[in-house]
Amino acid sequence: MNAEIIAVGSELLTPQRLDTNSLFLTDQLNGLGVEVTQKCVVGDHRERLADTVRRAVARSEIVILSGGLGPTEDDLTRDAVGDALDRKLVFHPEIAAQLEERFAQMKRKMAEVNKRQAFILEGAEILPNDRGTAPGQWIEESGVSVLLLPGPPHELKAMFTRQCLPRLARKVPRQVIETLVLRVAGMPESDLDQLIAPVYKKYTNPATTILAAAGDIQVHLRARCATQAAAAQLLAEVAGPIEALLGDRVYSRNGEPLEVVVGDLLKKQRATLAVAESATGGMLGERITSVPGSSQYFVGGFITYTNRMKAEALGVSKSILEQFGAVSKETAEAMALGARRRSGATYALSITGVAGPDSGGESAPVGTTYIGLADAAGCQVIHRQFLGDRTRIRTFAGQWALDLLRRKLTLPGV
Amino acid sequence: MNAEIIAVGSELLTPQRLDTNSLFLTDQLNGLGVEVTQKCVVGDHRERLADTVRRAVARSEIVILSGGLGPTEDDLTRDAVGDALDRKLVFHPEIAAQLEERFAQMKRKMAEVNKRQAFILEGAEILPNDRGTAPGQWIEESGVSVLLLPGPPHELKAMFTRQCLPRLARKVPRQVIETLVLRVAGMPESDLDQLIAPVYKKYTNPATTILAAAGDIQVHLRARCATQAAAAQLLAEVAGPIEALLGDRVYSRNGEPLEVVVGDLLKKQRATLAVAESATGGMLGERITSVPGSSQYFVGGFITYTNRMKAEALGVSKSILEQFGAVSKETAEAMALGARRRSGATYALSITGVAGPDSGGESAPVGTTYIGLADAAGCQVIHRQFLGDRTRIRTFAGQWALDLLRRKLTLPGV
Repeated sequence: MNAEIIAVGSELLTPQRLDTNSLFLTDQLNGLGVEVTQKCVVGDHRERLADTVRRAVARSEIVILSGGLGPTEDDLTRDAVGDALDRKLVFHPEIAAQLEERFAQMKRKMAEVNKRQAFILEGAEILPNDRGTAPGQWIEESGVSVLLLPGPPHELKAMFTRQCLPRLARKVPRQVIETLVLRVAGMPESDLDQLIAPVYKKYTNPATTILAAAGDIQVHLRARCATQAAAAQLLAEVAGPIEALLGDRVYSRNGEPLEVVVGDLLKKQRATLAVAESATGGMLGERITSVPGSSQYFVGGFITYTNRMKAEALGVSKSILEQFGAVSKETAEAMALGARRRSGATYALSITGVAGPDSGGESAPVGTTYIGLADAAGCQVIHRQFLGDRTRIRTFAGQWALDLLRRKLTLPGV
Repeated sequence: MNAEIIAVGSELLTPQRLDTNSLFLTDQLNGLGVEVTQKCVVGDHRERLADTVRRAVARSEIVILSGGLGPTEDDLTRDAVGDALDRKLVFHPEIAAQLEERFAQMKRKMAEVNKRQAFILEGAEILPNDRGTAPGQWIEESGVSVLLLPGPPHELKAMFTRQCLPRLARKVPRQVIETLVLRVAGMPESDLDQLIAPVYKKYTNPATTILAAAGDIQVHLRARCATQAAAAQLLAEVAGPIEALLGDRVYSRNGEPLEVVVGDLLKKQRATLAVAESATGGMLGERITSVPGSSQYFVGGFITYTNRMKAEALGVSKSILEQFGAVSKETAEAMALGARRRSGATYALSITGVAGPDSGGESAPVGTTYIGLADAAGCQVIHRQFLGDRTRIRTFAGQWALDLLRRKLTLPGV
């Protein structure tokens, strides 16, 4: 069963606002096994809104509108849905009386415009609103449920949860949606897709979605079954072969980000970590410490943006900096070793590179990055060439650094 | 002139994701005097997408699609727009060659699926993508401009700004929208609104929008006039009294963020900066170094998450840490002085605090923060109590630290 969500209001078409009610509604609908197949934001424009409602009703079993039920003249949802479904608006004196009472309780006189909120579409059921003035409406139109809900999130949520959800649950055939999220590091999206498509393409259920960020891919598997057990079994059936293909590139099976995974590994091994950052300027430390409780394993680090800081804070020798340059394997190694020595941490990660937009000359184009990992046994350094703008290159670098450490912590001997 | 935005991708129909590209696009289009009248999110579904494109093209002069241009089989924007506009897809060997070259530069072999990205709609102009593999496409269809842009925000923004905006500007009838953005530090949104509402409420043009983040408020004034001169005059008429009320809390008049403003001041004064971060764990350094060219004034810093790091990397004395604790005025002062001494920078900022969710005991509830600023004359420390979650408290701390330095650099004697 499919649903569409239509958010109404010209303020939602400004550069500052997003419709967030749809996230709540999607979550609730998914919980019933209903997919949201389209979302629209329409301004306070009667014809456009009526047209959008007509299209939605023609192709989906559930259509939910939020907003545009207020008392002012640009609140047009009632009128537009009336146009779309060819239903008249009927004045309900009992609603007007309740509204007046509500205002009286707040020791205010109801403005005449509020009476607009007492108009209900022919044949609609009234959904009382105990948190605001706009009642909701529920219309059944040849098998399609059309819901008119108020825009303010706390009103919408209360009305939907208490009055709409139980009723939709009776309408929707009993089913369960379960999701499994694999997170993968160090692999371009297209390579990953080529590798695992032969597995997931065999299934329409679970549905597979691939989301890619810099050096970080999420594979979402979404199974829809009659029971939780069946959904879990189906997910395992598909995730198993995918995981086998991706191998140790999978770093999390529950959606957790890499900094949490690495933190848990460090805690388990009672190990500590320090960082030495040049190109990322603190981004790696920020990311590690974004995790509550990271003080259990993160001791701190050094942001060595200049050669002088690399020398003084980390003890990188002048000869290394002069001979190989600040962006080099040798400097990355000396930074990681220096950070480990000076912090006393079990592990130290270092990053030096060219984040751009200016390059570091011929030997170091924008994106050139060296990442070092020092431990008691010594230091390893990887070299990568990242593509993108300053933020993306820095994000890549942090991601690869954390993944280098994850591999060290999970795959002894690497 | 009207525009519609269609975001493509099933992941944008999950409870976790919102389409944010449309905010950027709306802002840019509004800047040209173009209103966005409808926004849609459609999943990876060819017929639905084609239908949505057909409707949009029938009622708006500009239709912008984002996403669905990737290499995988669920990237269906090319096909769906082809269906909607009745245009065939044509393979462009030169694009395929460029893609292969791009992969070769990264020392990788291009996957076969990437060739899908070399298909262009009949009659479309190719919009090269220097930040990713998916080229954009521009189609003129009986007076309607249909733009196919890649989904990743950094790719979309670069392509739109450089290639689409100048061209749309020529298409749109001459009308001028000018925006003035005042950015304000260190003031709660409600206090600011109470202070300046009597001024801006008198005008519907310019329209005023207030956007608040942690410790950072933006006042957007947007004037719409026949000429640039008229718009500029109107903005000055309203901004003048607002600035007078806000005084030195206004840190930028062109929308630039605080890290850019502070960087420019440091450059002008040929001064350098170091940081010493505890609670923020690198966030302040990351923010300062997010600005290209920050190596001209930022030397680096110390992430001293543990007491041991505070002592060893910064020379904070044991007696201070024992007597006053890590979250104290005295520790903040010793951190800033130590960072300045050990880095040789003109100024050093320090942050120590309790970011939560666990508190630092009775003397230091969550949100307690001390910020130090050391210069040749000594060190000043401010104490703040921030409200919010971990990220918000850390963001507040970084913002106040930068603002403390801004005041020092602009208001001698503070």
